Amino acid sequence: MTLKIGVIGTGAIGQEHIARLNGKLAGSTVTAVNDINPDSARATAERYCPGARVHETGQGVIDDPDVDAVVVTSWGPSHEEFVLASIAAGKPVFCEKPLATTADACRRIVEAEIASGRHLVQVGFMRRYDAGYRLLKGVVTSGRIGEPLMLHSAHRNPTVPAHYVGDMGITDTFIHEIDVLRWLVDDDYVSAQVIQGKRSRHAKEGLDDPYVVVLKTRSGIVMDTEIFVNCQFGYDIQCQIVGEDGTANLPEPISVPLRHQSLAGQEIMMDWKLRFIDSYDVELQEWVQATVKGEVTGPTAWDGYFAAVTSDACVEAKRTGQIVPITTMDKPAFYR
Amino acid sequence: MTLKIGVIGTGAIGQEHIARLNGKLAGSTVTAVNDINPDSARATAERYCPGARVHETGQGVIDDPDVDAVVVTSWGPSHEEFVLASIAAGKPVFCEKPLATTADACRRIVEAEIASGRHLVQVGFMRRYDAGYRLLKGVVTSGRIGEPLMLHSAHRNPTVPAHYVGDMGITDTFIHEIDVLRWLVDDDYVSAQVIQGKRSRHAKEGLDDPYVVVLKTRSGIVMDTEIFVNCQFGYDIQCQIVGEDGTANLPEPISVPLRHQSLAGQEIMMDWKLRFIDSYDVELQEWVQATVKGEVTGPTAWDGYFAAVTSDACVEAKRTGQIVPITTMDKPAFYR
Amino acid sequence: MTLKIGVIGTGAIGQEHIARLNGKLAGSTVTAVNDINPDSARATAERYCPGARVHETGQGVIDDPDVDAVVVTSWGPSHEEFVLASIAAGKPVFCEKPLATTADACRRIVEAEIASGRHLVQVGFMRRYDAGYRLLKGVVTSGRIGEPLMLHSAHRNPTVPAHYVGDMGITDTFIHEIDVLRWLVDDDYVSAQVIQGKRSRHAKEGLDDPYVVVLKTRSGIVMDTEIFVNCQFGYDIQCQIVGEDGTANLPEPISVPLRHQSLAGQEIMMDWKLRFIDSYDVELQEWVQATVKGEVTGPTAWDGYFAAVTSDACVEAKRTGQIVPITTMDKPAFYR
Amino acid sequence: MTLKIGVIGTGAIGQEHIARLNGKLAGSTVTAVNDINPDSARATAERYCPGARVHETGQGVIDDPDVDAVVVTSWGPSHEEFVLASIAAGKPVFCEKPLATTADACRRIVEAEIASGRHLVQVGFMRRYDAGYRLLKGVVTSGRIGEPLMLHSAHRNPTVPAHYVGDMGITDTFIHEIDVLRWLVDDDYVSAQVIQGKRSRHAKEGLDDPYVVVLKTRSGIVMDTEIFVNCQFGYDIQCQIVGEDGTANLPEPISVPLRHQSLAGQEIMMDWKLRFIDSYDVELQEWVQATVKGEVTGPTAWDGYFAAVTSDACVEAKRTGQIVPITTMDKPAFYR
Repeated sequence: MTLKIGVIGTGAIGQEHIARLNGKLAGSTVTAVNDINPDSARATAERYCPGARVHETGQGVIDDPDVDAVVVTSWGPSHEEFVLASIAAGKPVFCEKPLATTADACRRIVEAEIASGRHLVQVGFMRRYDAGYRLLKGVVTSGRIGEPLMLHSAHRNPTVPAHYVGDMGITDTFIHEIDVLRWLVDDDYVSAQVIQGKRSRHAKEGLDDPYVVVLKTRSGIVMDTEIFVNCQFGYDIQCQIVGEDGTANLPEPISVPLRHQSLAGQEIMMDWKLRFIDSYDVELQEWVQATVKGEVTGPTAWDGYFAAVTSDACVEAKRTGQIVPITTMDKPAFYR
Repeated sequence: MTLKIGVIGTGAIGQEHIARLNGKLAGSTVTAVNDINPDSARATAERYCPGARVHETGQGVIDDPDVDAVVVTSWGPSHEEFVLASIAAGKPVFCEKPLATTADACRRIVEAEIASGRHLVQVGFMRRYDAGYRLLKGVVTSGRIGEPLMLHSAHRNPTVPAHYVGDMGITDTFIHEIDVLRWLVDDDYVSAQVIQGKRSRHAKEGLDDPYVVVLKTRSGIVMDTEIFVNCQFGYDIQCQIVGEDGTANLPEPISVPLRHQSLAGQEIMMDWKLRFIDSYDVELQEWVQATVKGEVTGPTAWDGYFAAVTSDACVEAKRTGQIVPITTMDKPAFYR
Repeated sequence: MTLKIGVIGTGAIGQEHIARLNGKLAGSTVTAVNDINPDSARATAERYCPGARVHETGQGVIDDPDVDAVVVTSWGPSHEEFVLASIAAGKPVFCEKPLATTADACRRIVEAEIASGRHLVQVGFMRRYDAGYRLLKGVVTSGRIGEPLMLHSAHRNPTVPAHYVGDMGITDTFIHEIDVLRWLVDDDYVSAQVIQGKRSRHAKEGLDDPYVVVLKTRSGIVMDTEIFVNCQFGYDIQCQIVGEDGTANLPEPISVPLRHQSLAGQEIMMDWKLRFIDSYDVELQEWVQATVKGEVTGPTAWDGYFAAVTSDACVEAKRTGQIVPITTMDKPAFYR
Repeated sequence: MTLKIGVIGTGAIGQEHIARLNGKLAGSTVTAVNDINPDSARATAERYCPGARVHETGQGVIDDPDVDAVVVTSWGPSHEEFVLASIAAGKPVFCEKPLATTADACRRIVEAEIASGRHLVQVGFMRRYDAGYRLLKGVVTSGRIGEPLMLHSAHRNPTVPAHYVGDMGITDTFIHEIDVLRWLVDDDYVSAQVIQGKRSRHAKEGLDDPYVVVLKTRSGIVMDTEIFVNCQFGYDIQCQIVGEDGTANLPEPISVPLRHQSLAGQEIMMDWKLRFIDSYDVELQEWVQATVKGEVTGPTAWDGYFAAVTSDACVEAKRTGQIVPITTMDKPAFYR
């Protein structure tokens, strides 16, 4: 069976997902698209899914009888509307992160999904599909390093574009760690602290960079993450879990060991787009397979809500310098 | 367009390829199968490609009008027949290694393909599709380490099964290096030498293990490969290219860096089947895509012939202890 | 010229230093010893420095006209007395850490040394003499990674003995990082925080283990250190400096890369005594050479005082969970 | 007791050894020196051992009653004379490599030492004192990787000076491997082969570079070594021992792991003089200690002779392209 997919939003990530779902991956085809910019929608359809219908509205995509499932890749502020509409239509929906732009909006989605009685929503946290993170989680789950006690990680970008300002170090960058770190150890956060220090001379005015975010989990795991988005040298994602009996690290992406010009080493990626590119394929392929079976196996609306609450707490922690508690609604039985 | 594929031979590798071509990969479907054991063919079809027709003969698969291209995964001695028949039928054919069991048979395939005037044959040397080997070739091609001068490699298996005897270190094991090493440096071999020494106590009677094979290429590259099929510790494939300006190594497969029980390190695979498993997906996906375009982009019949001649020379070199010249027919313009 | 040395305290470290100074290193000889236990002093002299005079008191060693310089390796509470007496006698003194058991006592030593008008006191922080830390400091000083912004470190012991309790994670373990980290970046601390979480099941009752200590320096460098003294897997000292343009790590001690039993890796030391054993040789050899020239080139009384104040602040931070300011007397011009 | 040493030859290595023996190491003093150039001898004495007597001849140094032991660092052709004279005088002698410039001359030394009835001669193969090689030998001896079966090594220099020509790749470069490899596995060589291929464009006219030398030992260990003296990228010494149960590598020298400019790695030394500099200290310190006890614990005259015979065979193998047997006199009981 081939899953017929409608895509709302044909910007960069939308086009990439359409190309995946309509040719690269097995078992899916894109039958309908929409964008707030109709020219973009038409051009995208022509290039990546010539047979797809171009709708004037996102709702049109959702309502299309030739659409089995929806992919939302429109801009963030529209996510809530399209996800809620998909739930209302009873159609499975894959929503790129963020699930919605506020914790309250995420909560409304959670409540709507529960009310619908069916698992329909998946959020696009793709790191869970990275081969390295999966191997790392496998080691933790195996018990080989014992109970996790601490976690040290780093998220480094060589530079960031001009539009990267304010709290985007939390909301755009650390948001990935927020999701993947609790998934790694299967735990929830209870507090956040941000420790700021010396600014890099490479940080443009108004941007705090670097800093350390400390999260503590319900079971007491202390997680420190360095956020450094002007590190110059590469796109560098590090993660080490310290357990009672040993430590385990996120594997580096494969790269050719070189000896050249008095250096022995390996190249570090400069382009973040390449680091998790394979994860998107795995993510969508598994989503297609699960969706056909009527299941949601990836990050849920609850995960999207939890990330939003945590992100808010981190932003507050960064502003106040205080240890900020992370308080969520009780986890509904629906998501256990 | 979906490529309709007929598969001859439904043993282990045949079943795996059918599963890939009929569900996992994009753009292909398996429409016909055959095996010398009709029960195997039927059971495989039932499990992996329920709609496929089960033929009584390989020729039946080839002749099936619902078959666009053929995959040959039957046992080695039958390869020549089915590849020649596919050429005769004008159908693209992917043949698992070896292309044929003798150099003469390979030569007959080469001549038949040339006579047909069309590029139809691809041989299943999957290492060329491994992400690591591709990155390594990329470094060589980039010129970053200069002209390749030497190559050091190792092919290590933890153990081998009871039926692994005699010259299988060359014909079953080293055959992979024979293909991939000349592809890496885009060169041909002119001589082979085998250097034997101390036997491992783990080598069962009658099996020489380990030894070193030295190949020399037309341009003078010296390539030494350690073949050690009872190394105990893991399935370990190593390759280092030494160029005029630096060295480059085959990347290790990704693995979680651990610190545990007074050791810092990473696991080595014990199971060879896992080492190149992703390569098979890439190999067949690219074959499907190229076949649809009427192209052969992978290892050709010429490569299969060259490997067979080299393998024969290595076997002789192992028996005689001499430096054995590698002499082939002139490379036909057709394959340049 | 051979430096004649008197040693006060012939316990384990005292005996090791005597063996170094009387045979292993160049330019020194041990001429006088004392211990609170006269039998220990006599037995040590007999074994390691047969010609040395055994004194009944530490003061006797200091006053011995055949003693050019003093080494204090007695138990901590006696350090202040012997260091002050050495200053009073105008003799150079090498004092094992801690310089004294309280910050006030350290301050009295600082004031006495200043009053004497001569640089006489060196404290036994041996990590500054470790080849790895020196290479790391060299990289920082070279400017290659730019201005240091953050530092991540870890101090892990496989286990600790029964007498290791209470705040010894700070006073006995972290004290080494306290000295060496500020030396690495040539900066002073202004605050300390301790972040506690989940306890290891291997930590015996009453011992908090592990936790993270966060120090901030005058220039704003944020330094997080994991203290984990029951990590089971090895004695593992890690340090990474994150600069504006790159990162640099403390090198691992050399160790044989192994492939064995499906693991590729290297052994981690289990015995802390071996990790910095070479540093003691370098430390004392350089002290002998500097002392002969009338100089102090190693950690000064000021460094000993600064470490004591910082250690006190960390202990308070651990007890309160608060960010504790680190306040010292102004740095005297004498030590600049 | 302080060992009084006379040094013959005050060129570069002579001066370095004098500086070691007269100030840096414990238990030795240089009391006499000589050089074929009297100005060099005088200037060296003035700078490094002001109290030493400057002799007009090497024999004068040997005969000096204030000399307990002799160090020969004169040019190669004079080694035989001074070593034989030291034996005749019954004085322990440390001779820099080569022991003598021909295998016959080495044999005469061996016979003279045996005739003297005392162990007096040590040859300056300093790699046996390198911490890395010692750790590697420790792993082999421990049995951890089982019986050694094969050995892969590489000796790479970034470039060589203009006077480096002809067979110096064997006689000056590979000579180090010749000694250290058989010491590592405690075995002797029985044959040598040299495999030449493509020349590096960086090799100046008349110099073959790179090539592979294959040695086989009595027990059957196959050892291949890449000699590449214009590798450009660094001074790079590699060694891997493949045993029945695992592999072990020579550790890399410690170096700071860096992340910088899209590269993760470590610096490789460009200057060979730094690679084994610590080994010289260990070598001479142990020689002083053993000499005082009347022992020879380092490479013997037999090792010097064996290296010379092997080197001759390698040179012949390089010229002929043949597998050349290595034939020595029987090992005298004296050296067992």
